[in-house]
Amino acid sequence: MNTFRMTKHVVGFTFGEPVETGILMGAKEKVSLKLPLEIAQKDGHSRFSFPLTERDRVYGLGPNLGGINKRGRKYESYCTDDPLHHEDKTTLYGAHNFFILEDDDVARGYFIDFPSRIRYDVGFTSQSQFTVDIFGENFTLLVIDGENLKSIVKNFHEVIGKPYMPPKWGLGYAQSRWGYKTAEDVRRVREAFERHDLPLDSIYLDLDYMEDFKDFSVSEERFPKLQELSQELQETGVHLVPIIDAGVKIEEGYDIYEEGIAGDHFVKNVKGEPYVAAVWPGKVHFPDFLQEKTQTWFGEKYKALTDLGIDGFWNDMNEPAIFYDETSLQEGVEAAIKAQGENLGVYAFFNLRDKFQSIGNKDEYYQRFFHEFHGKTYSNEELHNLYGFYMTKSASEGLRKILGKRFVLISRASSIGMHRYSGIWTGDNSSWWSHLSLNLRMLPALNMSGFYYVGADTGGFGGNAYGELLLRWLQLSAFTPLLRNHSALGCAQQEPYAFGTEVAEKAREILRDRYRLIPYLYSETLKAWKEGGLMFTPLAFEFWGEEAQHAEDQMLLGEELMISPVTQANAGGRYVYLPEAMAEVTFKEDQVTLTLEKEGVRYMSYALDELKFHLRRNRLLPYVPPASSTRDLEVSTLHVLGYVETEGEYELLDDDGISYGYEDEKMYSTRIRVTRGEDGVKVDVKNTHPHIKRILLTILDGENHIMEKEVLV
Amino acid sequence: MNTFRMTKHVVGFTFGEPVETGILMGAKEKVSLKLPLEIAQKDGHSRFSFPLTERDRVYGLGPNLGGINKRGRKYESYCTDDPLHHEDKTTLYGAHNFFILEDDDVARGYFIDFPSRIRYDVGFTSQSQFTVDIFGENFTLLVIDGENLKSIVKNFHEVIGKPYMPPKWGLGYAQSRWGYKTAEDVRRVREAFERHDLPLDSIYLDLDYMEDFKDFSVSEERFPKLQELSQELQETGVHLVPIIDAGVKIEEGYDIYEEGIAGDHFVKNVKGEPYVAAVWPGKVHFPDFLQEKTQTWFGEKYKALTDLGIDGFWNDMNEPAIFYDETSLQEGVEAAIKAQGENLGVYAFFNLRDKFQSIGNKDEYYQRFFHEFHGKTYSNEELHNLYGFYMTKSASEGLRKILGKRFVLISRASSIGMHRYSGIWTGDNSSWWSHLSLNLRMLPALNMSGFYYVGADTGGFGGNAYGELLLRWLQLSAFTPLLRNHSALGCAQQEPYAFGTEVAEKAREILRDRYRLIPYLYSETLKAWKEGGLMFTPLAFEFWGEEAQHAEDQMLLGEELMISPVTQANAGGRYVYLPEAMAEVTFKEDQVTLTLEKEGVRYMSYALDELKFHLRRNRLLPYVPPASSTRDLEVSTLHVLGYVETEGEYELLDDDGISYGYEDEKMYSTRIRVTRGEDGVKVDVKNTHPHIKRILLTILDGENHIMEKEVLV
Repeated sequence: MNTFRMTKHVVGFTFGEPVETGILMGAKEKVSLKLPLEIAQKDGHSRFSFPLTERDRVYGLGPNLGGINKRGRKYESYCTDDPLHHEDKTTLYGAHNFFILEDDDVARGYFIDFPSRIRYDVGFTSQSQFTVDIFGENFTLLVIDGENLKSIVKNFHEVIGKPYMPPKWGLGYAQSRWGYKTAEDVRRVREAFERHDLPLDSIYLDLDYMEDFKDFSVSEERFPKLQELSQELQETGVHLVPIIDAGVKIEEGYDIYEEGIAGDHFVKNVKGEPYVAAVWPGKVHFPDFLQEKTQTWFGEKYKALTDLGIDGFWNDMNEPAIFYDETSLQEGVEAAIKAQGENLGVYAFFNLRDKFQSIGNKDEYYQRFFHEFHGKTYSNEELHNLYGFYMTKSASEGLRKILGKRFVLISRASSIGMHRYSGIWTGDNSSWWSHLSLNLRMLPALNMSGFYYVGADTGGFGGNAYGELLLRWLQLSAFTPLLRNHSALGCAQQEPYAFGTEVAEKAREILRDRYRLIPYLYSETLKAWKEGGLMFTPLAFEFWGEEAQHAEDQMLLGEELMISPVTQANAGGRYVYLPEAMAEVTFKEDQVTLTLEKEGVRYMSYALDELKFHLRRNRLLPYVPPASSTRDLEVSTLHVLGYVETEGEYELLDDDGISYGYEDEKMYSTRIRVTRGEDGVKVDVKNTHPHIKRILLTILDGENHIMEKEVLV
Repeated sequence: MNTFRMTKHVVGFTFGEPVETGILMGAKEKVSLKLPLEIAQKDGHSRFSFPLTERDRVYGLGPNLGGINKRGRKYESYCTDDPLHHEDKTTLYGAHNFFILEDDDVARGYFIDFPSRIRYDVGFTSQSQFTVDIFGENFTLLVIDGENLKSIVKNFHEVIGKPYMPPKWGLGYAQSRWGYKTAEDVRRVREAFERHDLPLDSIYLDLDYMEDFKDFSVSEERFPKLQELSQELQETGVHLVPIIDAGVKIEEGYDIYEEGIAGDHFVKNVKGEPYVAAVWPGKVHFPDFLQEKTQTWFGEKYKALTDLGIDGFWNDMNEPAIFYDETSLQEGVEAAIKAQGENLGVYAFFNLRDKFQSIGNKDEYYQRFFHEFHGKTYSNEELHNLYGFYMTKSASEGLRKILGKRFVLISRASSIGMHRYSGIWTGDNSSWWSHLSLNLRMLPALNMSGFYYVGADTGGFGGNAYGELLLRWLQLSAFTPLLRNHSALGCAQQEPYAFGTEVAEKAREILRDRYRLIPYLYSETLKAWKEGGLMFTPLAFEFWGEEAQHAEDQMLLGEELMISPVTQANAGGRYVYLPEAMAEVTFKEDQVTLTLEKEGVRYMSYALDELKFHLRRNRLLPYVPPASSTRDLEVSTLHVLGYVETEGEYELLDDDGISYGYEDEKMYSTRIRVTRGEDGVKVDVKNTHPHIKRILLTILDGENHIMEKEVLV
């Protein structure tokens, strides 16, 4: 075991010869340290455990099922495409091996830098034990200290590099559907948004736009003039965001396939031939994204679409998902042939059925193909969790080179490290109330892993949404940097206008409120880029007491807000816990109201056409008038809500929304400070924002009195 | 359309020539009435709708997904065996066509007497419309009025006959598992209960006890002397409850099969031959339970097991579930053969996979076999929802004749009408927190359908339970008349001692508390038998206000209690809404505490080793000391808790627990009345119970003062 220090708070322990995953950034100073754990190694596994008392809590593990507190479940880090996320499932699309264990004495963060399977049993098999089972003997374990839970997260973020920063238009509303089959469909969607006066910044294209599911192809028949469509939409402030899949169709004459063969870019089977799997295009080869030459090659291919005016993409199927491979299909067929004419016993029948039922994403597929990585050959299984990461690095670096400006990029598969290259959507969820609830609970864990540009498929991907579910989901997604409504072919249409006029009108109200908050959300995203740490913070990270410790359905956003969405059907509201006095803010029909609410629990009515949240004591919240596109957001008059008993300050960060100026800290800053003294309320403003001219403040005091004030800057 | 009146509150409308399902009981007086609805009939469907305002609510529909308020979903009445009850599902094992629609002006109950498919769209497709789609043109619609929601339920119960009444031992704790493979396994379970001092009244046997899954057979090898086992267990107060499946194995020499053929008892295919389907035993025939001769024949067969000392059964697979039939399997095999060597496109592949993946319970199976019913031939599809009902009627009537005493009987498939013959468990749920929550929300709807002997598979059938989930589930099931812990082969063992000593100890506390409450629960079950109506009542049925209207996770039990179980992981408690002042009751470590809580919402800590609930104002709750079996329950000293501000009364009903005396109203009654006057507290007792000798009262007043009093009777 080698030990090293990365920062004051982060030390590492290296076992064997770990794969250089590329996740950790920064120097490693060799030091001599004692690991505060015992690690048992046996049969190619490494295992360690923590004892758990009833009060201990575990946080993190990225996009996973379960609660904010991860206790009482098993989890598996092994990127998997399984669209039915019910409670038995242990793995989703990401593999994020950062967690914090908080016991009565101390809280500590842990990160396991290992690219294959890891299993976590967090007080499930035994209530009093948390066990980590690493499927290998070569890995690095980081131990991260900090003053408190929030600093542990920041200290971890220092060693994994800064996150992807989306363009400002990426914070606008995105409409998506697997099933916008033609350019006309897309035009109709945009027109419907206009007709219903619904804000819109982008329309995502699923597989439909491709020719035979071929990456970087465009269907001549269905999307004959994509460049015209793209331009036409951009003129109305709407970006097109097409999908790219991991698998490349095997087809003579198809340029990507032929270049891939010629350039030796595809993963190999055990015989050294390109490995064949079946996904959407039928038989495909997978690019070996672990190789730099392949990253460069594939990343440049995006040019085919950026040349048509495209500046946003989503990378899909990059776990990689595999529908079947020939060996397993053949096994199924042979079993069926053998069954013919037999009087099958029930177990023989189950066995036959299972050959087809469980043919997708079999473990053995990932043992059957191989990568070249840093000059060595590895099975996919060994590096499995890096595949989506490196596909996305390839795209992100390619796009930056091609475009020279920021772009939207999200990926389905993910691991920590990929946060430097893109955001993520939380995968193929369902139109279930439990997934709305899951969406909320995942947010802090995604931030812990360094991902800020995150959001779920609002309304749910699979299954059928309905008006009430969509509206409630919008009331949550109104706060997530990525706000995308996406649904699957064959499921109910779920555009905000798909459920009738009444729902469309209510959705409009919520979306207008979202756009009011974009300056704040964008500012918080820039702050997360600068400083790391949490944008969405569990109440348990900030407050004491049983209610705060167990709060799974409300959380803090930034230092300013507490959000408490309704996540249940047929509810006129919900119980909200206020760990301290806060101002309840209601945005409804372009009116903003502010009411003082005292500490404790109370029932909060929450209608479907409003946006409600709480503003913390001595905090300020900037907002602007609504707009129908981020392009049209008008900041010349900045509104500020405050609940100030003594003093409150907020620094609004902004920039041009599209260049990389923020990397040189070239941001606009508007620092507003409100002080309440004996001689009344004083407002100080320091402003470098070129467009902000006037600030209109609405300030609540501890007696529920409201004061309005105007400041010219 | 013919119209008729059954009672003052119940009128009926007959369309076409409905099947005489046997659900409705009592005379139908011909009258001339106007239907308060428009029914459209077209293409063999009948459809009617109700407009819905945002405030309207819909209740009922029996064992289904969704909330207490059924809005925002689709439901289907078509008994189906589908073990993965996630949010997309629209049908479970029962088909209960009773619902109440409450709008601002009026509440009304509706029952559709129709034995095939009915679909309900309760404000899903359109928020403002509730549509009922009956897959036929011949049916009877009952419209039920009442003073309030609770009376509507009672008025409905008057026309469907009195419910099944379990023996008292049926309210004891039942341990079950698919996977108690031998008599020794069963002995070990009983011994473990004794060793851990856990109460136990019955052990259920799943398919394991049978020889080759054959009904009424017992494996010579694994259960060689079932009679001895049964006797041995009964001596310790434990009953064996074996399973019986619907399908009869096709096997020469197997008596049931041969008698079935000889007596012409099996359902037929279109050619008039016995229909062949595959279930657990491989190929089976299904008894035609719709025929009286078959009911009699099959009902008598239970004697094979009652002769061995058995007095409880569960009827399973009686939707009926079908794994495959030969036609469909052959189609799958042929598709596989055709696929051989082909380069399958993705849709061709999906099509092939689906032939096997979706081979169970196909719609067409139920069109391929036929029943004789009241002298006519019907496809199973036409009478589908009566199959489980009539299998259970057959068992229930058979058992009554054979045993001459009460027995435990539960069924998986169900429809209204079957409530006269057995209880139900809510089917093959999963070890999911959401199913614990669903269990709670289903209870009032099951009562509405006339079922009181109900409970879910506590801990969850499929998937893996863990300690905390089981304990939280026990804290709910402690209140349901049927309290059975059941789990599937291959899933984690989930006996209360399977998760270590600490969990076993906590479970013991909860189960001891259950046994304290059995006299009350049994009394409430007898009252439900006498009077109908709800045992579990939504708060919305009793209280005004938004909080009560939306309360989906707490409800009233009897006239006395409010239960508020914890249904979330990692919670130290929950928010409880008190629509009026109540006494909070905590049973913990044989101590009972009583605290006055005022109206409103508050956070209630709820530990894993206690039982908490609320006692309403001016109500009394009787309980007794814990026991390890219902046989040992000791009522000579009856404890009574009260929260009495002015006066409170409770009538405890009881009987010998096993005979049919209750049918002649031969019950014991202990009527306790507590009056608080200026001169203190007065207690009146009228007692006909032969064993109750002493009453110990603990009475709380509106000032949180407690008074104790002893009354000898």
